[in-house]
Order: sequence, then structure tokens, then C-alpha cells
Amino acid sequence: MEPLNIPVLFGSVRRDRVGIRVAHYLVAQLVARGHRPTLVDPMERVLPMLDRMFKEYPAGEAPRVMQDLADLYATADAFLVCSAEYNETVPPALTNLLDHFLEHYFWRPSAIACYSPSGFGGVRASVALRPMLCELGMPSIPSVLAFPHVTKVVDADGTLLDAGLQTRADRFFAEFEWYARALKAQRVGGVPY
Amino acid sequence: MEPLNIPVLFGSVRRDRVGIRVAHYLVAQLVARGHRPTLVDPMERVLPMLDRMFKEYPAGEAPRVMQDLADLYATADAFLVCSAEYNETVPPALTNLLDHFLEHYFWRPSAIACYSPSGFGGVRASVALRPMLCELGMPSIPSVLAFPHVTKVVDADGTLLDAGLQTRADRFFAEFEWYARALKAQRVGGVPY
Amino acid sequence: MEPLNIPVLFGSVRRDRVGIRVAHYLVAQLVARGHRPTLVDPMERVLPMLDRMFKEYPAGEAPRVMQDLADLYATADAFLVCSAEYNETVPPALTNLLDHFLEHYFWRPSAIACYSPSGFGGVRASVALRPMLCELGMPSIPSVLAFPHVTKVVDADGTLLDAGLQTRADRFFAEFEWYARALKAQRVGGVPY
Amino acid sequence: MEPLNIPVLFGSVRRDRVGIRVAHYLVAQLVARGHRPTLVDPMERVLPMLDRMFKEYPAGEAPRVMQDLADLYATADAFLVCSAEYNETVPPALTNLLDHFLEHYFWRPSAIACYSPSGFGGVRASVALRPMLCELGMPSIPSVLAFPHVTKVVDADGTLLDAGLQTRADRFFAEFEWYARALKAQRVGGVPY
Repeated sequence: MEPLNIPVLFGSVRRDRVGIRVAHYLVAQLVARGHRPTLVDPMERVLPMLDRMFKEYPAGEAPRVMQDLADLYATADAFLVCSAEYNETVPPALTNLLDHFLEHYFWRPSAIACYSPSGFGGVRASVALRPMLCELGMPSIPSVLAFPHVTKVVDADGTLLDAGLQTRADRFFAEFEWYARALKAQRVGGVPY
Repeated sequence: MEPLNIPVLFGSVRRDRVGIRVAHYLVAQLVARGHRPTLVDPMERVLPMLDRMFKEYPAGEAPRVMQDLADLYATADAFLVCSAEYNETVPPALTNLLDHFLEHYFWRPSAIACYSPSGFGGVRASVALRPMLCELGMPSIPSVLAFPHVTKVVDADGTLLDAGLQTRADRFFAEFEWYARALKAQRVGGVPY
Repeated sequence: MEPLNIPVLFGSVRRDRVGIRVAHYLVAQLVARGHRPTLVDPMERVLPMLDRMFKEYPAGEAPRVMQDLADLYATADAFLVCSAEYNETVPPALTNLLDHFLEHYFWRPSAIACYSPSGFGGVRASVALRPMLCELGMPSIPSVLAFPHVTKVVDADGTLLDAGLQTRADRFFAEFEWYARALKAQRVGGVPY
Repeated sequence: MEPLNIPVLFGSVRRDRVGIRVAHYLVAQLVARGHRPTLVDPMERVLPMLDRMFKEYPAGEAPRVMQDLADLYATADAFLVCSAEYNETVPPALTNLLDHFLEHYFWRPSAIACYSPSGFGGVRASVALRPMLCELGMPSIPSVLAFPHVTKVVDADGTLLDAGLQTRADRFFAEFEWYARALKAQRVGGVPY
């Protein structure tokens, strides 16, 4: 089947961030499944704290980093969001990354991967992301891929060290593809607004 | 186009409930758009406080009220949830109604209508419903149809008295149909699990 | 110091509920610390699905089970809420128990214990409880006492089998007492409304 | 009674932000009630996107802007958080401001004011803030002060134009003072950790 274009939105700019391993794992999995993921790392694509959204700039006047994201998102079939958990919610770098755009997300699904050094796997951040992603126009698929004890279950190269988690990941990606293909096919016939 | 089967899940059993007007309005709108809605009113379909889910009963041994709901849900293309707001969250009658089932919701979208006597329209309940509906396997569509000042904007017959709200409703239903048709078409090709 | 009166609000009526072990553990801990806990079990104190709140009945006409709870709550210094997690949120039996009262909770703190058979410990339910408990007038203390793998960490008698969790529990209860005593002392001087 | 030291944490750096009117109103109200508020405006106190928290710097090596906030927070009796609502949740500038500190918030209450140009008043952001503020160690008081139709109810000077809202504000501040004094008095006797 046709590959899916999937930006992987990563949400931490902490210098000691471990979660980037998870992002690399997710990207590699998507490649292995025949898709075209693009890692969106706010440490490399430096956005200001939200002042103006992309769409609030006159055409052609948005900062280059925003224009590049807009161009990338315009081709997207789905968005994979990879989140840490700070204080029971979403890190500011991820909120900020997401908030700069809106209509680009419409009529596409999202999926949530979360992680934490503890046994809870960052699932409280996933709860906080659910309403936000819905409001942004990209409801999250039911399954959430949580990485508890993240420093132990993914190594520095992004290799997963937990077989049970791989089984859950396979199911998660199959579900994600199902939703992405459903909405992609429906977009061919147009969208309501 | 083919009509969609849409259970309308209502979530209050208070004797003085005003929100049932909203449920009647939603049902009438769906009929007018050519669909087959069924009102699910927990005051008429009395479920016990959650002990056993439908699927935890041996085949054929679930109480009749649950079997009837299972039969209805088996034909559903989408679920419309109509919620009050109690204490910043979802009324227990709605949580209880939803919690009795799980797999019946899978691979279908949901949509949220909410209401309150105040100007806030019950939107805090919609935020609380987002993660729950995702986890139940029926992510909610982006738009939420909120009825603030519910006693004033809908009369006792379920007639909407606010033209601006009707405009929002038209858009809401078009979006809901888009998602319902997208997932319905994709289900024809099978589901991952 | 003077003992604190602490209702322990338990939120499941499932016949196979394991979480009641956690409730028994919490009650025993409070007794050991010199307090006067009372287990409020909705399986024994059977409330209808919310129709009328206690305060909506004329004085003396509420059902006995509600009057008994009102009498108990009138003496409370703090409320300990013990929750399972169903579908990323709070079980309906707990929501229903909480929603029957309002002013009785005012000017008192609450604390959240949660549990699940998985490694996540029910923490998503704790996130859902936070706004609800605030709105009910009893903000939850910062620490949450989560029991992951609940069938393994608490035995059928309510004995805790995990030393690390006991350390967290000691800290949790000390924090809870601090808040309960702070608000109790302040209530002596009156409340704003 | 002794004045309370109350940082007012504002959460938008958008150039066209209207909510700053609300922050000015809140500061003026606190002054009129005899307290010592300090507006914390992230447009003036520019923090980086969260990399290191204040406490992760060696003593004396944190950037000046963080040290100043730490000094201010060390004297705080309570925190008043003033939030917009972006995409059903908290603006990144506010999350980022909050996430830079932790222990400074402990054993103090917070209160939430929220606003939006719509009739919903930003209350969905208040729901999202509840768990976060609890986890940060400063549970929010039950009442939330919401400013719907913010451009109409507060003028550019921070004058409130809605009498009903002033009545709610009076009650909100009385409740906030009650909690702040309760915890302040209790801190005199020490804290558990």
C-alpha cells in the first residue's frame, strides 16, 4: 500500500532529554512499515514562545522555520505525537509546537506515544493531550503507546529492549494506519469546511 | 447517501432534567438529515450501577436491557453523546451507561453535545469526555456542540430558538457525517483487531 | 494531637472488586495514626443513580442512607477518596457517591488514593478527580497514593506487601494531616460563606 | 490583618493579548484588599523554553530572571494564576513559567482566573490547570473566576464593567484569603517535608 506521510512531533528541549530515544524508535518503526516519517524536533526547529500562529502572518512572511513546518504538514496523512509528562501534563515545548498551527491538522488522525522514567509511563500527559488534539482537529486514536521506565526499555540508539512493548507497538501502529487510511480515503471526496 | 445508524446516548436521570430537550433536538436533526437515530435514555433503559459489563456475562445471559443495547450498538455507525456537566465532569448516569460496553464502540467515531443552564454550556464535561471516549474506542470529532443557557435556547419540544447555534449545528453534523462515513467505508475492508 | 474524622470514600460496586483491599489498608493506616476513619462503601450504602442531591430534599425527608452520610460528613475534617480507573476516568459508583453532596465538603481537604491491576496504578483516574474534587469544594492534596499491580502489592487482608509504597504512604498521610489540621484550625475562625 | 504576598502569574506573550487587562484588574483588586501582589509577566520576564529548572542550577548560577522569580516566590503566601485558553488547555507561556519551579510553590494555595473572548470564559483551561497546580504543590481553591467576553467585561485600564462579575470576584478573593491564611498559619508550625 501507499506509504503514509507522518510527522513525528517531539516535545522536549531539555538538554538531558531521554525521550528522544523514543522518537527515534518511532521513526524507525514507521520506516520499517513502509511509511515516510519526519522527526519534528523543537530543539532543531526553534519556534518562539507563541505570539503569532503561522496563519496570522501574511502569506510568505512567516519565519522560515514555520514555513517549513507548514510545507511539511501540508503533505501529512497523520501526526504522531511523542510526549514526556511534566507535572501531570504536557511539556511547554510540545504545547508550543502544536499551538502554532491549526487547519493543517484538520481531517487527519493523531496518535500519542508517551514516556517517563517512572512506572507510570507518562500516561497522565496522554490524558491531557486528548482534548487538545481533538480541538486541534486531529483526534487521537484509542490506543496510547506508553514507555514506562524509559531509560531501561529503550537504549540510546532507539532500540526497544522489551518484547511485550513491541507487541503493543505493532498493534498501535496497525490501528494508527487504519485510521490514517480511513481519513485519507475520505479526504479524496472533499471535506465539509 | 445511505442513512447512518446513530445511537444518541443521553446522560441524566434527574426528574427535573432539562437536557432531554437537547437530546430530542439532536434526534430530530439526525432524522431531518436522513439518518436513523435511536435515543438511549437511561431513565427508560435502567442499568444497574456497573458491576458486570455486557461482555462479562455468558452469551445470552445478560439482562434484557443490556442485550437490547448490544443489539442496537452492533448496528451503529457512530455515537452521539449528550452530556450535562456536574462538578466540572460527566454525570454518573452517562459514565455508567458508557462503561457497560467496550468493543461495540470500536472503529466508530463519537461526537459530543453538552449543555448547561449557565453561559459555559457544559464544556468542562466535554473536556472530561474526550479521554474517556478515546479510551472506549470511539474518538470524538473535533467540534463540540455546546448549548449554554439551555432553558432559553431550546424549548420543551426540542425546538432550537437560537439561529447562531443552528449554524454551528449544521457544521457539527456535517463534520460528524464525514467521520462516520470515513470509518464506515474503512470497516468494509476489515479492522486490525 | 486530636484525632481527625476522615470518611474514606470507596468507588466500586463490582462483585470482583480488588480495590476494597486498598480501602481496608487506608482505614487501618488512619487508625494506626490515631484518627477516626469511616469506610463509605457504596455496595453497603446503596444510593440511587443521582436524581436529587441530599440538599434538594426537604429537611428530614431524604432517604436514610443519605441522611446517615450527611450526619457522617458533618463531622468530617477531611475526605480520603479511593478510586479505581475505568476508561481513563473515575468509576460511576464513585462519581455518583460524590455528586449527592456539596456543601458538606466545603473548607476541608481531600486526598486521592488510586489503584489498578496494571503498572499505571490508576493515575489517570486521579487526574480526572482533581478538577471534580476542587469543584466540590475539597481540593486534593498534592501527593497521590497510587497502587500499581494492586493484586500483588496488597493482600486480601489489606496488608501492604511493598516497602517502598509504605514509605510513600507515610509521607502521603503526613501531608494529608498537615492540610486537614490547617483547614480545621482556620474553620474555628469562621468561613467566608 | 497582615497583607498577603501574592505573585500573579500571567500566561500569554501574544502581542495582541487582551488578557493582560484581567491581570491588571486582579492586581488592583488585591491592592485594594490590602495585599502585596506582584505581576509576573512572561513578556517582561523572558524565560527560555524549559531546559533546566531553577533548582537544577548550582546555587547562584541560575539566570538572573529565574533568580529574581525564586526570590519573589520565596516570600509568597499564595499564587494567583491568570490563564487564557488555547485549544482547550493552558497556553505554553504559562506552562513554561510554572514548570521552572517546584518546591517554591509547596504548602501554599493557588487560585485560577481565566478568560476568553467567547462566552465560555476559558473554563476549559481551568480544568487543565487543576491537576497541574495540584502536582506543583499548590492546589487551587474551589472557586474559579472566569471572564467570558473578556473584551467587553474589562476595559483597557483593567476596570471591570460587569457588576455581577464583581460580586463573584469578592467571593473569590474572600475564599482565596481564607485558604492563604489557613496554610500560612500552619506553616508556622513547620511542614512535613
